[in-house]
Amino acid sequence: MTLVGTNVEMTGGRAKVAGAVSYAADMDIPGQLYAKALRSPYPHAKLLRIDASKALLLAGVRAVVTRDDLTGLNPYFGTGVEDQPVVVIDKVRCVGDIVAAVAADSREIAEEALDLIEVEYEELPAVTDILETAKATAPIIHEQHVDKRAGGNIHGVYRAASGDIEQGFRESDEIIENSYTIPPIQHGHIEPHAVTAFWEPSGKLVVRTPCQTPSPLQEQIAKVFKLPLNRVRVIVPFVGGGYGGKNHARIEPVVALLARKARRPVQWILSRDEVFLTGRRFGAVVQIKTGFKQDGRLWARKAEVYYDMGAYALSGPANSKNACLIAGGPYNIPHRDYTSYAVYTNLPPAGPYRGVGASHVCWAYESDIDDIARRLNMDPFEIRLKNLLKENTRFITGEPMISVGISECLKQVANAIGWEAGAEQRLRSEAIVRGKGLAVAIKSTSTPSTSAASVRLNSDGSAVLLTSTTDMGQGAQTCLAQIVADELGLPFDLVTVTFPDTDFTPYDKSTSSSRATFHMGKAAQIAARQIRDQLMQAGAKALEAHVEDLELKDGRLQVKGVPEKRLSYPQLFKAIFGEASGSLFGSHTLRTEGGVDAITGQGKGSSFWFYSAAAAEVEVDTETGKIRVLKVATAVDVGKAIHPLQCTLQNEGSALAGLGSALFEEMRFDNGQPINCTFLDYMLPSMLDHPSEFESRLVETPHPDGPCGAKGMGEAALPPTAPAIGNAIANALNGARVRDLPIRPDKIVALLSKATAKR
Amino acid sequence: MTLVGTNVEMTGGRAKVAGAVSYAADMDIPGQLYAKALRSPYPHAKLLRIDASKALLLAGVRAVVTRDDLTGLNPYFGTGVEDQPVVVIDKVRCVGDIVAAVAADSREIAEEALDLIEVEYEELPAVTDILETAKATAPIIHEQHVDKRAGGNIHGVYRAASGDIEQGFRESDEIIENSYTIPPIQHGHIEPHAVTAFWEPSGKLVVRTPCQTPSPLQEQIAKVFKLPLNRVRVIVPFVGGGYGGKNHARIEPVVALLARKARRPVQWILSRDEVFLTGRRFGAVVQIKTGFKQDGRLWARKAEVYYDMGAYALSGPANSKNACLIAGGPYNIPHRDYTSYAVYTNLPPAGPYRGVGASHVCWAYESDIDDIARRLNMDPFEIRLKNLLKENTRFITGEPMISVGISECLKQVANAIGWEAGAEQRLRSEAIVRGKGLAVAIKSTSTPSTSAASVRLNSDGSAVLLTSTTDMGQGAQTCLAQIVADELGLPFDLVTVTFPDTDFTPYDKSTSSSRATFHMGKAAQIAARQIRDQLMQAGAKALEAHVEDLELKDGRLQVKGVPEKRLSYPQLFKAIFGEASGSLFGSHTLRTEGGVDAITGQGKGSSFWFYSAAAAEVEVDTETGKIRVLKVATAVDVGKAIHPLQCTLQNEGSALAGLGSALFEEMRFDNGQPINCTFLDYMLPSMLDHPSEFESRLVETPHPDGPCGAKGMGEAALPPTAPAIGNAIANALNGARVRDLPIRPDKIVALLSKATAKR
Repeated sequence: MTLVGTNVEMTGGRAKVAGAVSYAADMDIPGQLYAKALRSPYPHAKLLRIDASKALLLAGVRAVVTRDDLTGLNPYFGTGVEDQPVVVIDKVRCVGDIVAAVAADSREIAEEALDLIEVEYEELPAVTDILETAKATAPIIHEQHVDKRAGGNIHGVYRAASGDIEQGFRESDEIIENSYTIPPIQHGHIEPHAVTAFWEPSGKLVVRTPCQTPSPLQEQIAKVFKLPLNRVRVIVPFVGGGYGGKNHARIEPVVALLARKARRPVQWILSRDEVFLTGRRFGAVVQIKTGFKQDGRLWARKAEVYYDMGAYALSGPANSKNACLIAGGPYNIPHRDYTSYAVYTNLPPAGPYRGVGASHVCWAYESDIDDIARRLNMDPFEIRLKNLLKENTRFITGEPMISVGISECLKQVANAIGWEAGAEQRLRSEAIVRGKGLAVAIKSTSTPSTSAASVRLNSDGSAVLLTSTTDMGQGAQTCLAQIVADELGLPFDLVTVTFPDTDFTPYDKSTSSSRATFHMGKAAQIAARQIRDQLMQAGAKALEAHVEDLELKDGRLQVKGVPEKRLSYPQLFKAIFGEASGSLFGSHTLRTEGGVDAITGQGKGSSFWFYSAAAAEVEVDTETGKIRVLKVATAVDVGKAIHPLQCTLQNEGSALAGLGSALFEEMRFDNGQPINCTFLDYMLPSMLDHPSEFESRLVETPHPDGPCGAKGMGEAALPPTAPAIGNAIANALNGARVRDLPIRPDKIVALLSKATAKR
Repeated sequence: MTLVGTNVEMTGGRAKVAGAVSYAADMDIPGQLYAKALRSPYPHAKLLRIDASKALLLAGVRAVVTRDDLTGLNPYFGTGVEDQPVVVIDKVRCVGDIVAAVAADSREIAEEALDLIEVEYEELPAVTDILETAKATAPIIHEQHVDKRAGGNIHGVYRAASGDIEQGFRESDEIIENSYTIPPIQHGHIEPHAVTAFWEPSGKLVVRTPCQTPSPLQEQIAKVFKLPLNRVRVIVPFVGGGYGGKNHARIEPVVALLARKARRPVQWILSRDEVFLTGRRFGAVVQIKTGFKQDGRLWARKAEVYYDMGAYALSGPANSKNACLIAGGPYNIPHRDYTSYAVYTNLPPAGPYRGVGASHVCWAYESDIDDIARRLNMDPFEIRLKNLLKENTRFITGEPMISVGISECLKQVANAIGWEAGAEQRLRSEAIVRGKGLAVAIKSTSTPSTSAASVRLNSDGSAVLLTSTTDMGQGAQTCLAQIVADELGLPFDLVTVTFPDTDFTPYDKSTSSSRATFHMGKAAQIAARQIRDQLMQAGAKALEAHVEDLELKDGRLQVKGVPEKRLSYPQLFKAIFGEASGSLFGSHTLRTEGGVDAITGQGKGSSFWFYSAAAAEVEVDTETGKIRVLKVATAVDVGKAIHPLQCTLQNEGSALAGLGSALFEEMRFDNGQPINCTFLDYMLPSMLDHPSEFESRLVETPHPDGPCGAKGMGEAALPPTAPAIGNAIANALNGARVRDLPIRPDKIVALLSKATAKR
């Protein structure tokens, strides 16, 4: 490995710095129209009547689509559950549901046309509270998609267990039980959703969209319009941030429908408030109960997790199922019983967000472990170390865990933060207290799943990797090029990685779940190896040497130790084809094994498991409740850092998102009405919120199935960051703890007054 | 074969009819500049001084390139011979040579800027006559690229021989000897050359061009700019006609250079007069001498062919070499000696034109064979049939010919035209005479050569063929889809064929030489077969059947005769990958064997040989010389007609081009100055010139190496059309013959006055 492990120049980095990247919204198609949507003002209502005839009369309006335009289509779409209509059919289920869409010559005309669409609703009782919606008495949001046995708006119930939970609690010396809440938050990708669609005269649909899942999106659109896959082309340029927010078909079906009706290209760039209504992180309630021994051993843990999917399921069921497995954290606990619920509410649809599912449960179990340590008067570092998963420990799924770098991650962040036993709290002044906190996390990746890669070698030794992996700033193209280049003995610049274009690039499950490096990287490596093998065999014949004695290095094939016996790539092509031209191919579809049983939760929960840790030091103003984060350190077990700098940047981004979710990020609703749908009202971390010290450490515990030992790592540092900050605050406050995110100053003040009142 | 052999709807046909195809010139890139060139007014001159500084001062001019901008580049490019500078360096070699190019905000500004460029030339003696230029006394055009032993401006001499030519002539009963000339003509593609180039900030060059040879063009541009192939991306949309005229790098290097200097996209659409100066068919002189026996057996033939390449070689040497092999026609002649010369002249560069090389020699040898028949008082049909190549006849190259449908072609056209022995001439009135004529032709395809194809099967059973074959109206995408669909048992609509985009699509030698169906079709078929094999094996396992008992049909795999034992494509994917998703791949680089020895002409001359015949009936007004073509019939041995209608259209197009070249097409020069560079002055066949009857017949002699037995056929009907018309005219005129194309009325009148004078 020459390139893997080094910080080569990021692909596209230069163009981004030069402002020369065209994002989806920058690309206009001659003759394109502009779309706008009429959205529901109610969280739950019957759609009695809709009449767009007046809008159609407005000059410059080229098409309006409503439920009347769904004839002949499969009108509902979705990743697993097809519960989302292209436009509302019978009732609206959240504020922002699209009841009609207009395509017009300008955005202004489209906007004006919306006012001319007549709609009558009959309001229905709405439910937005996670626990309320799960009750039998709740108004039902999706009659067709709820689990009748579970009741209420529960779509799915997922369970995993090991040992005997009742026995576990009986055998425990002490038990603590708490409930935690996590609010919906925004992904905060700077690029909004921006979709352009047009129909070729042949009846083929072309969709350009900044999407993390080109292949599944292609499948969903094909299903809506009843087309074969080769007649839906999805093109994905550089994506300006995703974080899970661009994981699903969102506005693509309605834009395609508009384009079909208007017979023109249609572009729709969402405004920021529309992005808020289009996707968000699940809100959740986590109820967790832990029994433990006096010596600090965790002995029994029961967790119940409610995920608020909002009005439509998207990947909520799959995410809830995965989160169930990790509801108790990366600990070896003899008796475990975890249940998760995916519930509908009348809020805008949720979906994956960096650290999906893991952040919610981690907030709970890592807060609890500090409470347990405090109860036992143990060092939070030591109690974690004592209970953490080790190599070959059996997990709740029954599988022996491998490549387990979690203890090392914990040690690294403790070291980075200057952790000392018993030295958690410090006073800076009477009003201002300081504290340090630790947290660890575990997460799964989407399992099983499929990624296909195709590599082509040109006769001059340059190569192209055809892949549907999306580059959304994380550097996927860079990292995949490094892997392919090393496999073929090429310099970095000689490998091109394509953007996804489903006409040309093969199937990929998604660029999400931190799966791209592990899955696509491995598929690409295997594909490149097929070419390598062809070169080796041709070279062995031409050089009259054994394959084992050959090496591909510095753009040529040579006999090890006999550098004068060598062939350039053009010479190798000549040896194979009789001419220094042509193409050599390698292709591989990688399908991972695994998955857990739906009822028992037993099986292989993840192709690889993420292990990470975070530490934080904070300052709390006990008078104002104001929190200043002095330092955040994260450590992630990356298996092998293909590009250490990119890994570090991922960690820092994760930590910053974790900090925002810990302290101030929350989408707020008033009976289903969103009230902070702009980045003025909704608080993203700014440069002023950055901790003065920021450290990222990479732990490398090679994974046998990953390319060069690499695992996914993009999200790993996020889940432990909020609880590390929460624990630092609790340590600063002698154990007083806010359990409902975000930890706003008003909550601190209220908490401290209550504590004072108690005293 | 379900689809192969049927007239499925042409891919893109609907879009073309709807006017919805975007050709290269229709695609604008935001921020693009417009290019114009300053061209040499002299056919041959030293470039003493060039100063563009004043042009650069004009508002709106963004870049000017001259020879001063070639530093660091490989300034000369070319297919085989790198003799063409990106812009003129030391001297101009033809009128139209580019001495400077401007990129500006508008075409008007660019045009205006040209006047501000100061140039000083020193005129040199020019040579434009083909035979003159070959003489030792001629002014030398390319010191570096002439064959010093051959002398003059001869670039290359190619020879093939069999038997003993001197003995052959000694043994002959009679000998005739003639000289024929063929003028330069235009391809007449309606779409001009239209190139857009831009440089990505990474230093990668993107070129969009309607080009028949994306891969070699990519190689040439990469060489000019010293880039690896993965950093030059060539994209080819639908091409609006090529006929060989878009076979080579032409304006692409200078547009790319302008774009690099301006740091902006640059578009250049040639005006028609610039197209005339950019490419044309070779002019030629063919000297042919034939000895024959009284019974009509051809006994000895000597041919010397001079091809006028113009100022730059392009593929002239390769074309001259190939043409040498066929200089005597598709006849079995015991003693043969053919020589061809590729010569430079001070005319604009020539290059391949449909039927390259073959049309020139065919005009000569097929005129001569009628003269021989007349001399022997034999039926021109019978004398041909007697001498034509048959299965396993050894050709001049020494190879035994296979798949030889030439006699059948001749019989078909004779039948179509109502040929009767001795009934060639008919009088309609005193002044107007009628005659019928026949001709046959043979042609080779580029050999050896390489085509690579990659097929991807989607999980729903739709497929994509990734190919760099250009669709320029001939229907390549249709035909390739048919082959792939049949191989995979799919309906036609489920196979997409890509446009060339060298980032995604693999190497292909060219879409020229009628090689696409044979080479790319075969590569695609083999690639698809790899997928078929994977499906068969998975299906055999899943259905517990033998592979031999299975068939892929109607979009599923089934046990022959047991249709209820079957698997759909999604089921097959599930059987392979555990899930109905992913991609299956097949890829193949096809390299044909063959090629002839440079000195002896022995070897395998062509991967397949074209055999074709034409017949014509004409009416000649002996007073005005006006010729009316009443009927043209062509027959081509296509091996297997993949899409019979497309084959027929190719034949009709070829025949029409042949008619134009027979009767009125010629580019005219006055001491190197072109004088008919518009379609007003240059005569293309119009609807009024169409023969009232037009017939195309397809002969199918399967070729063992072609996909489904197919051979290339796109050009085959062109070469025999002009001599068939020429023979019809000669027959109408009792053997009086114009040997210099085109057969203009004034030449007829002159010929007849001479004949009358003689009497």
